[in-house]
Amino acid sequence: MLEQLKEKVFQANLDLPRYGLVKYTWGNASAIDRETGLFVIKPSGVDYETMKANDMVVVDLDGDVVEGELRPSSDTATHAVLYKNYPEIGGIVHTHSTWATIWAQAGLDIPAMGTTHADTFHGSIPCARYLTQEEIDRGYEEETGNVIIETFEERGLDILAVPGVILHGHGPFTWGKDAKSAVLNSVVLDEVAKMNLFTRELNHFAKELPQRILDKHYLRKHGKNAYYGQK
Amino acid sequence: MLEQLKEKVFQANLDLPRYGLVKYTWGNASAIDRETGLFVIKPSGVDYETMKANDMVVVDLDGDVVEGELRPSSDTATHAVLYKNYPEIGGIVHTHSTWATIWAQAGLDIPAMGTTHADTFHGSIPCARYLTQEEIDRGYEEETGNVIIETFEERGLDILAVPGVILHGHGPFTWGKDAKSAVLNSVVLDEVAKMNLFTRELNHFAKELPQRILDKHYLRKHGKNAYYGQK
Amino acid sequence: MLEQLKEKVFQANLDLPRYGLVKYTWGNASAIDRETGLFVIKPSGVDYETMKANDMVVVDLDGDVVEGELRPSSDTATHAVLYKNYPEIGGIVHTHSTWATIWAQAGLDIPAMGTTHADTFHGSIPCARYLTQEEIDRGYEEETGNVIIETFEERGLDILAVPGVILHGHGPFTWGKDAKSAVLNSVVLDEVAKMNLFTRELNHFAKELPQRILDKHYLRKHGKNAYYGQK
Amino acid sequence: MLEQLKEKVFQANLDLPRYGLVKYTWGNASAIDRETGLFVIKPSGVDYETMKANDMVVVDLDGDVVEGELRPSSDTATHAVLYKNYPEIGGIVHTHSTWATIWAQAGLDIPAMGTTHADTFHGSIPCARYLTQEEIDRGYEEETGNVIIETFEERGLDILAVPGVILHGHGPFTWGKDAKSAVLNSVVLDEVAKMNLFTRELNHFAKELPQRILDKHYLRKHGKNAYYGQK
Repeated sequence: MLEQLKEKVFQANLDLPRYGLVKYTWGNASAIDRETGLFVIKPSGVDYETMKANDMVVVDLDGDVVEGELRPSSDTATHAVLYKNYPEIGGIVHTHSTWATIWAQAGLDIPAMGTTHADTFHGSIPCARYLTQEEIDRGYEEETGNVIIETFEERGLDILAVPGVILHGHGPFTWGKDAKSAVLNSVVLDEVAKMNLFTRELNHFAKELPQRILDKHYLRKHGKNAYYGQK
Repeated sequence: MLEQLKEKVFQANLDLPRYGLVKYTWGNASAIDRETGLFVIKPSGVDYETMKANDMVVVDLDGDVVEGELRPSSDTATHAVLYKNYPEIGGIVHTHSTWATIWAQAGLDIPAMGTTHADTFHGSIPCARYLTQEEIDRGYEEETGNVIIETFEERGLDILAVPGVILHGHGPFTWGKDAKSAVLNSVVLDEVAKMNLFTRELNHFAKELPQRILDKHYLRKHGKNAYYGQK
Repeated sequence: MLEQLKEKVFQANLDLPRYGLVKYTWGNASAIDRETGLFVIKPSGVDYETMKANDMVVVDLDGDVVEGELRPSSDTATHAVLYKNYPEIGGIVHTHSTWATIWAQAGLDIPAMGTTHADTFHGSIPCARYLTQEEIDRGYEEETGNVIIETFEERGLDILAVPGVILHGHGPFTWGKDAKSAVLNSVVLDEVAKMNLFTRELNHFAKELPQRILDKHYLRKHGKNAYYGQK
Repeated sequence: MLEQLKEKVFQANLDLPRYGLVKYTWGNASAIDRETGLFVIKPSGVDYETMKANDMVVVDLDGDVVEGELRPSSDTATHAVLYKNYPEIGGIVHTHSTWATIWAQAGLDIPAMGTTHADTFHGSIPCARYLTQEEIDRGYEEETGNVIIETFEERGLDILAVPGVILHGHGPFTWGKDAKSAVLNSVVLDEVAKMNLFTRELNHFAKELPQRILDKHYLRKHGKNAYYGQK
């Protein structure tokens, strides 16, 4: 069932330690098949070294397991909520990558300070609020997804133009058209988190990128007038 | 004698440079066999590259060598004191890992600022005080173990809920149910030490994780209602 | 066509991730054949893992493709402007390397604070200004080259004595007699950017290298009295 | 001639990039044969990847080449001065390793803040002053050696108890009984430079290690009552 998607999700999960975003099992990647409405996700707490493509778990949009011997990631409900709410998303990644997590722990949005950021994120990367006790009791993982949605709605953000979020005290979630681009967005998020932290240390008065440069770089790579890459 | 345990302790020692926690021979891992009351520990100052499982030294709870051609780690007495006082501990690791040692040199407890911390440590990681001249004269390594015990008793900490400590001016000790989990706890300790340092640099007013999130994440992974991982 | 140069440019591009200057496809190296007035550059957005020497694109000094199946780097026009204006340059590299980009985002020149800097750059590495909206509209990449030229002319800098620049909010460009030396200069630029940032954090009053030491180290390696290296 | 020593010096030079202390050719290691009064040193500016043991150059205590096809390191005169003045030294290493160089650029002694430091250096690692114009004119590399000697004499330091120095605006030199221990001392110096910088950032009021702990750790590993390691 969904063998090709399992292979892609498996490879996306292996990419997380390869890009230095994940130690041990502290992360998970998934991707959805929109035709069947099922998504494939990493099993919970399984060593990356022994994990096989076939260990990936197939889950429906209510977060219930449809196929698989192993328990899915404990964050499965967050993925399900995001897939259900945003039909344009094809893949999701969650990590505790060092520099993105530092901004999450600091409780601060990551401002767009350079073109590395602008090439992928069209503006600040928002920091979503802590969950309340009531939300935790109602279902921590599902409500985490809801707080992400709340954050994007309150700010009127386009989910694909700003393909990531950091959760206060926790870490980043990123997404994209598939698992591979969700991984790329996690790599970018962590790198700009690192660069922006040290930019502010070097120059406390460093400003955000002017809007004209932000637009130019984002639109050089995205949208109908993009001219970066092949074809 | 204890061949399987030697192999596990050997592998745990090899994991220390593999996870970037140790350069040269600056660390040691051990594990105990509670039936015989004997523990297995790395020999002192032996290159990781030439070290073999059979070089591991078997020691009793007074720190006396029971089997082995080589001298045990110079920190053996600290391990012995901890095993004797805490029957729930199965493995111990000591390193000078960079970021944990920075907090140790700064003489500060490591506060719980994120869920990476909360997934493993149920609260702040304490910094134990310097030894006095009298304690050094009486036996530096044994008294180091006693100061760790004093720290946990004074603060009323559960040794398994906070499976690590940093020693002022020195570095971390961590423990767990076996050598492998003690290594994991050293990796977590070093990573949260790094993230918390830069969190505070980024936002001097960053707060500790709210108690409700700390509890949720710790209990998601530990205790009878845990639902992280398999089985 | 220019097969040897393609091989050299290909190798220079592979060196960028090898020296940790580039993730994914965030960089490009080129080199020029002065006899034909054509230069060879990396194609746009092609994976380093699947890229072959033969994928390199041959371009003329107006930035028009002369040979190649693939689109050239989106930064090709910047390379063309620099080659046209500076006949002494043989190779150019552009990256978003972490520490150089941090100074670029901070909008600050990188001062010469040590001999690692002086061995390669004979003075501060300038930070070029943001482009105006008019310049962006006229041609972002070409005008980027023009702003680099403006920066060097206004300050009266020798293009080979200071073989690099950082662009405000963007990242570094470096150059040299060939692609290989342009890569070396990118490595040096990123390393001194890192060292100088932390030097200033450690000692806010740290001064630039005295002129006599700057001259001594630069001239030990460059010019007719150089005595570093072989021959 | 001195084939075994050449092999050891060659391996020590290869260790420098392996331990992350050196990029390209920015470092050199040497070792002396006290019977003949000749020392073996890396050639100048030769790629580590193509360098062979037989490329090592044999030099006398005046810095003149006795055997070898290649030019010796441009820092050879500094090594010669140190070997001549300190008969107890058997090996010397010079690098521009990142964190040691940061302290050198900051112009600050590296204080002993932890036991990682105390295990190898019995007190602060001194920062030697800039050379004067007159000294540069007289012979930059030889006078660099003389300034190191001046630093140790003025402060009354034991050359083996403090086996390293940083040069203001430049980088570290370390030494030891042979090339291998000089490399170890460079690794320690860089690591404590990194840890101490961030210790001070984390806690501006962090104090040096108490003398009693400094003594205990140093003497646990050095001198007639040492009990670290085998034998």
